[in-house]
Amino acid sequence: MSQSSSALDVAALREDYPVLDREVSDGVPLVYFDNAATTQTPKQVVDSIVDYYYNYNSNVHRGIHQLSQEASVAYEEAHDRIAEFVGASGGREELVFTKNTTESENLVAYSWGLNELGPGDEVVLTEMEHHASLVTWQQIAKKTGATVRYIPIDDDQTLDMDAAKDIIGPDTALVSVVHVSNVLGAINPVSELADLAHEQDALIFVDGAQAVPNRPVDVEAIDADFYAFSAHKMAGPTGVGALYGKKHLLADMEPFTYGGEMINRVTYEDATWADVPWKFEAGTPVISQGIAFAEAADYLDEIGLERIAEHETHVTEYAYERLAEYDDVEVYGPPLGEERGGLVAFNVDGIHAHDLSSILNDHGVAIRAGDHCTQPLHQKMDIAASVRASFYLYNTREEVDALLDGIDDAISIFK
Amino acid sequence: MSQSSSALDVAALREDYPVLDREVSDGVPLVYFDNAATTQTPKQVVDSIVDYYYNYNSNVHRGIHQLSQEASVAYEEAHDRIAEFVGASGGREELVFTKNTTESENLVAYSWGLNELGPGDEVVLTEMEHHASLVTWQQIAKKTGATVRYIPIDDDQTLDMDAAKDIIGPDTALVSVVHVSNVLGAINPVSELADLAHEQDALIFVDGAQAVPNRPVDVEAIDADFYAFSAHKMAGPTGVGALYGKKHLLADMEPFTYGGEMINRVTYEDATWADVPWKFEAGTPVISQGIAFAEAADYLDEIGLERIAEHETHVTEYAYERLAEYDDVEVYGPPLGEERGGLVAFNVDGIHAHDLSSILNDHGVAIRAGDHCTQPLHQKMDIAASVRASFYLYNTREEVDALLDGIDDAISIFK
Repeated sequence: MSQSSSALDVAALREDYPVLDREVSDGVPLVYFDNAATTQTPKQVVDSIVDYYYNYNSNVHRGIHQLSQEASVAYEEAHDRIAEFVGASGGREELVFTKNTTESENLVAYSWGLNELGPGDEVVLTEMEHHASLVTWQQIAKKTGATVRYIPIDDDQTLDMDAAKDIIGPDTALVSVVHVSNVLGAINPVSELADLAHEQDALIFVDGAQAVPNRPVDVEAIDADFYAFSAHKMAGPTGVGALYGKKHLLADMEPFTYGGEMINRVTYEDATWADVPWKFEAGTPVISQGIAFAEAADYLDEIGLERIAEHETHVTEYAYERLAEYDDVEVYGPPLGEERGGLVAFNVDGIHAHDLSSILNDHGVAIRAGDHCTQPLHQKMDIAASVRASFYLYNTREEVDALLDGIDDAISIFK
Repeated sequence: MSQSSSALDVAALREDYPVLDREVSDGVPLVYFDNAATTQTPKQVVDSIVDYYYNYNSNVHRGIHQLSQEASVAYEEAHDRIAEFVGASGGREELVFTKNTTESENLVAYSWGLNELGPGDEVVLTEMEHHASLVTWQQIAKKTGATVRYIPIDDDQTLDMDAAKDIIGPDTALVSVVHVSNVLGAINPVSELADLAHEQDALIFVDGAQAVPNRPVDVEAIDADFYAFSAHKMAGPTGVGALYGKKHLLADMEPFTYGGEMINRVTYEDATWADVPWKFEAGTPVISQGIAFAEAADYLDEIGLERIAEHETHVTEYAYERLAEYDDVEVYGPPLGEERGGLVAFNVDGIHAHDLSSILNDHGVAIRAGDHCTQPLHQKMDIAASVRASFYLYNTREEVDALLDGIDDAISIFK
């Protein structure tokens, strides 16, 4: 089958992913369209994990012995590499490794939010926020007496920027916004939102979990104060995420979790803190995962983010166009022709998302059904759930055809 | 060389660890004695990581498709497996996966401590606490107005239990104690301390990072309210730790971090929480790491924790005895004959710990030099730093001889 777009030699790339050869059941090959939840992991990244454990596994920072020196250099330089990957010129002084994007949100919410927010302050979110941002700031606001406000979505399911200009005002302390919606696929104008926030002396936190994996991101061009993303959505391992923060902000913030590695001096009475990023990485850090994260960045850079974005557009547009041909299918998010991330969420009239997902699984097609960690958005759209097909660099238009076959089958069963 | 004790066939076990074959420099084989910082990872565990990424890598909990079901079952059952490993009969309802032991401490400090502690309450620690416990409770006490008190160590560098009986009193809200000291090797009477705490209606948190890897631990026999440990110190991967908590305590506690996976229902206004343990695992969890953690438990159980403990005693006693023969060497912790964990921390008179570590590295011997995340204990012992050799199931008495050769060399250089 012809698996290539003009941008990528997909057939060659698929060789990097042994899991893509598996069958879901006898004779039914896997079509993996759950990439917005987690992407698959190429051999290069898995090899880096094995290499770590078989050759220089050691705790970092304080060891004088050879293994610890090797692990320390690799782990610390991984911070610089990930900083560079998103255009942060400050290297490790602006880049903290966390467990995942969610922990990056919580780190800022606890370390900055709990100390800086109070009654009268407003935290501005969007109606399309992921729970990682929405629940975190909602709960931190409850603890501090701050108020949460939401920038609504338009009828075309993109952010209402006129409303944004009204809502972001003198009481705004922080704007937290998703860069690419994990349901709508909408790409939010984060640079414009950053300007609006900064005009009000507010900070902006950008959730880039769905942006960094598949398009070039430059946190300095955006002028984001904080920017978060996860390795496992960009060909990296589970268990590690990143928090970018402007140097002076991270330097001034209180620590989040306490323990070894994050201190400078400790007495029985009190403690002082290490420099960024170690101040925010208490305990034995995610050593193997951080090193593999950097390997994933190398892997993606070698392919080229521009080309990955072009390929995803090639697959996504095809999926959108073909789904739009169905009378019974409603696709969510910006209409065709507008720029969108590499995913389509939709429903088939009269078929519950979970039933559709189950039938698609019989066809080998792995999509996600549910609320995609955006329950309030689903309430707003007045749907209980949706199915979401999300694409990555190894997916093809031929695989989209398998999705469509599954949908046809579901319609024939349920109608 | 004869690598076996009566308890273990070490030569055979070493085959599981490719890193143990490496040379530190030309012709100088690695002697890895930094196990209290992190243990090496056997092929069985690394294979489980590779198997995950190559065969069923997927996000968990909410997916209907085949890969997600396979990953969910493996990840969720890994909780039950780790619970069983430490004798927790409640399975996953009593066992949370965290990033590391330090995060386990912080989870309880934030979720329980911030809500329950106040002026007049006392948190009782020991003078030999690791920073993970010491700094965390010190800082949470500062935030809440609670007071921290320390159970002192005796002249023989074991815990002063008479003092413990005085200090743990009606104002005590929580006792947090290290099970096995990572510097002294002292094994604290945690069950007795649990009784003292419970007599005062206080809770007890046990830091078991140095205990679970190498002796049978039963959290219910101890009657610990909370018990924490890390995978990477027990043949598992970096990036995952465990928090055991009694079912009713975890069920009643507020969440720590917020986001996806840990909620039940979310609106734009508020949220409710999922059941334990998911309530405490916000965002995409440490999936691959948790599954590999369970594999490490299988690996250790197959060898047998009693036999591992016996072997470590065999190596540790030899190291202690031989080091005690040196006039210029001071070994810290309980005297020979008392039960101790598998480590010896010491100093050679007139040689800085870092210099000694550097010379030992030339001999291929990886030991740790520094304060071992116990600065206050080192201040109390009036030493700037110490070196620590810590042993695991693959170490031998012959390797201890290499350590002694290195010490001899250091003495000949510096004296």
